[in-house]
Amino acid sequence: MTGCAGFIGSTLVDRLLSEGHEVAGYDNFSTGHEAFLEQALSHRRFRLIRGDVLDAEDLRTAIRNSEFVFHLAANADVRSGTERPRRDLEQNTIATFNVLEAMRANDVRRIAFSSTGSIYGEPSVFPTPEDAPFPVQTSLYGASKLAGEGLIQAYCEGFGFQGYLFRFVSILGERYTHGHVVDFVASLRRNPHELRVLGNGQQRKSYLYVQDCIDAMIVAIKKADAKVNIFNLGTDQWCRVDDSLDWICQHLGVSPVRSYSGGARGWIGDSPFIYLDCSRIRMLGWRPALSIRESVIRTVQYLQTHPWVLEARA
Amino acid sequence: MTGCAGFIGSTLVDRLLSEGHEVAGYDNFSTGHEAFLEQALSHRRFRLIRGDVLDAEDLRTAIRNSEFVFHLAANADVRSGTERPRRDLEQNTIATFNVLEAMRANDVRRIAFSSTGSIYGEPSVFPTPEDAPFPVQTSLYGASKLAGEGLIQAYCEGFGFQGYLFRFVSILGERYTHGHVVDFVASLRRNPHELRVLGNGQQRKSYLYVQDCIDAMIVAIKKADAKVNIFNLGTDQWCRVDDSLDWICQHLGVSPVRSYSGGARGWIGDSPFIYLDCSRIRMLGWRPALSIRESVIRTVQYLQTHPWVLEARA
Repeated sequence: MTGCAGFIGSTLVDRLLSEGHEVAGYDNFSTGHEAFLEQALSHRRFRLIRGDVLDAEDLRTAIRNSEFVFHLAANADVRSGTERPRRDLEQNTIATFNVLEAMRANDVRRIAFSSTGSIYGEPSVFPTPEDAPFPVQTSLYGASKLAGEGLIQAYCEGFGFQGYLFRFVSILGERYTHGHVVDFVASLRRNPHELRVLGNGQQRKSYLYVQDCIDAMIVAIKKADAKVNIFNLGTDQWCRVDDSLDWICQHLGVSPVRSYSGGARGWIGDSPFIYLDCSRIRMLGWRPALSIRESVIRTVQYLQTHPWVLEARA
Repeated sequence: MTGCAGFIGSTLVDRLLSEGHEVAGYDNFSTGHEAFLEQALSHRRFRLIRGDVLDAEDLRTAIRNSEFVFHLAANADVRSGTERPRRDLEQNTIATFNVLEAMRANDVRRIAFSSTGSIYGEPSVFPTPEDAPFPVQTSLYGASKLAGEGLIQAYCEGFGFQGYLFRFVSILGERYTHGHVVDFVASLRRNPHELRVLGNGQQRKSYLYVQDCIDAMIVAIKKADAKVNIFNLGTDQWCRVDDSLDWICQHLGVSPVRSYSGGARGWIGDSPFIYLDCSRIRMLGWRPALSIRESVIRTVQYLQTHPWVLEARA
């Protein structure tokens, strides 16, 4: 697993270990945290390899003897794409190519990939299904993930790979380290009386609890067996940014004055409405256990009991 | 213009010069031909820069003072993707990133890009419109061009660029140097009695004459003014590989025994049916002058009078 020390990666490592699998984790700890692997590192079926997905040779060695690759390493900082466009290309597109080549060199042919609902750009259909009209990219993050998906699909056709492409909404829960909930909680911790909101607060977003996300990935890999398996992963709900802020404030017992940066989008490439049609994964029997509200609260609780996450933010 | 010495590039250079524009052409002559620029090089409004699209610094210098960039440089060898997957990534994806970054550094914000109908993979809708259901890639070539499109779209949103993305069917006509017509003509020249056909000969393909293609690009750039302008470019026709072979043989006066490699696809990632819905570009008043049959014949005539093209093939 690339990105094994990240939010979703480390949670998936723990799950795979608990299901009896042997896991080799690969991470450069640029955004991952050693602390997230504490449990895994005490496990004899886990092996940690410190390495960079841009180092093709290290990757080739690391992937040797694997049966299945979870490629989760990525630049997940969707907001600063226009500040550092090369980072998305390298971390999300070229890195995926390196993973595929390392797999090919080792005759490993099954891969799961953390894609994103951002590849739908600003969709014309809601909820947005996997076969929505051919989208137009609006962010470097989305474009770089789309490129990663395309590469995997071409390797499935060209080299007999089998691919599981998961288009996530924003994921919340324990070990969550970046995104609007951590921003709000960190800001309210510094100053509970005022809060700055990117955009007009009316952006409609969908979220999924990390354990539900991992359940869905595992169900898909066990039950779907096409050459290319594409799944939206989200809840059948959306909320406004202001709604999630209400829940956070209520939970923290604060009533800040909110000021808005304005506009329908929080940043360049932000999608004002993300709401995915998840009937394809639901057809396999999966259901999320937590609502959006519950996963927001769960995330705030995690941040309250793990203040180092707030402090570790750049 | 990147790829100015290629089949389509050099033809577009001549057209732009004849319309009074000043053209700076950039090419590394890896697949381009000096001979195609003979006319342009005698023109005082044309400047040739020998350079590689993977050389970001050369590109940045070359693009200085441009108003509009035609990015046509590409690996167009769609068949050998699985032999050299890195080439598609580098020549079609990373090169496009380099062009966009060179433009950004020089404050040049308008770009036209030669994309491909191959990005529809094996479509479920015929004729296939620009907003067809989100496709699954079946070739490294298609995946690399999709990635290029996505990057351009993200630069349009993120950096105020304006993009013209042209999804071509196969282009035929004068200066055509690779693809099935040149393969057949070259083979029949060596041996007019036998002919080997990739696939079962029943693949349905669409073609467009190069001057019609260039007319369409110019019409689109003059008349369409959205942030991202996507156009399928093709004829409202398709033919079977065997049909085009009939026309070629009839024109050459030969009757070879045909043998088929078999299967619905000529090579890995070949699409058995390509037929694009071109009503969007037709709405702008464009019509192709030549039918598929006429453009096949025109191509054979060109190859007959320019045998060096057949000899120059690798």
